[in-house]
Amino acid sequence: MTPLLSAPEVVIDRLPVYARTLAALESRGRHVVSSQELGDELGVTPAQIRKDLSYFGRFGKQGRGYNVQRLAGELRRILGLDQEWRMVLVGVGNLGRAILRYRGFTPEGFKIIAAFDTDLNVVGRVVGGVRVYNVEDLPQFLKDNPADIGIVAVRAVAAQEVADILLNCGIKGILNYAPVALRVPKGKQLKDIEPVLALQSMTYYLKSFSP
Amino acid sequence: MTPLLSAPEVVIDRLPVYARTLAALESRGRHVVSSQELGDELGVTPAQIRKDLSYFGRFGKQGRGYNVQRLAGELRRILGLDQEWRMVLVGVGNLGRAILRYRGFTPEGFKIIAAFDTDLNVVGRVVGGVRVYNVEDLPQFLKDNPADIGIVAVRAVAAQEVADILLNCGIKGILNYAPVALRVPKGKQLKDIEPVLALQSMTYYLKSFSP
Repeated sequence: MTPLLSAPEVVIDRLPVYARTLAALESRGRHVVSSQELGDELGVTPAQIRKDLSYFGRFGKQGRGYNVQRLAGELRRILGLDQEWRMVLVGVGNLGRAILRYRGFTPEGFKIIAAFDTDLNVVGRVVGGVRVYNVEDLPQFLKDNPADIGIVAVRAVAAQEVADILLNCGIKGILNYAPVALRVPKGKQLKDIEPVLALQSMTYYLKSFSP
Repeated sequence: MTPLLSAPEVVIDRLPVYARTLAALESRGRHVVSSQELGDELGVTPAQIRKDLSYFGRFGKQGRGYNVQRLAGELRRILGLDQEWRMVLVGVGNLGRAILRYRGFTPEGFKIIAAFDTDLNVVGRVVGGVRVYNVEDLPQFLKDNPADIGIVAVRAVAAQEVADILLNCGIKGILNYAPVALRVPKGKQLKDIEPVLALQSMTYYLKSFSP
């Protein structure tokens, strides 16, 4: 199913949460869910859910709710989650090691195929089941082993250079953990996993509660 | 300056990036910047920047650009970044340790005052300058040492329970690293720092490039 109208990014950002909640309902044996119930699970209004889904076609029948399994499957298809995505990680410090040991990627179809660092103490090691290579070998590695997504876990000062190398070597999307606003060319994707930016937009709402 | 119209969350999410870019311009000695230049730095259109800022008042003069220092200061004020925010962390595994050692919080006014875990091997230790307490002591600790934000770095299965405890003990916002959709009551804030959700919305865009 292709989008009818181009869905705004904020809608796309919500779809994985919908898909995840539907998967949870499915695992609890639910077959049908109303937009009201789904909204209650997610903390959004039923109208929002109906509007978000309307970008991608018609899913539920009026008054009969959504078929959980079908909607979950459609969302996974829409989001491209029915295929495996290959990732490389650059930066094997504390954060990089935590990412390499994170168990949440593989079950969702995201596979880190290699890690890279400049530190010769860590190059050659295997962390979380992933081999660490010298960052100098990155271009050749990606030529031999194409990947889709690059995880940037280096320090802020090196992040743009690392992102540029990754994107020049065929990487299509950057998952950025470095506390810096990266620039990526048109057609490439960037997602910041950066706690400070998230905190800085949260405090906008928190400050209203402060005395 | 108070908002003229209530700004959508997606706008609030962009403001920290604007503030950060302005701070970088300021540190490079720039006094004035046009919305065109700011847009180029950020990869968004000048119209978007003008529209986003219009929620909070008038900043630039038509054709004269923005005063970098003033706009940076205003944005920090709007976002509540001109004060210190106290945080506690729950979950001192690989990820929790990386968070405790992360150097990016303090310079931005976010201070982790304590960490909590159930594992008696880690309770009593100091990680990244932060003392780790038994999670049983969390309610009493927060009574004695009020904090604003709780960082949830436990496994998915424990995350909702931990979030509930934090919110019941006066925490106003949750920064969630666990791969699960948490529910928080109205008036409380939630930000997910969860790489899989970010990846899952990125792949929507990546899949269009795939054969």
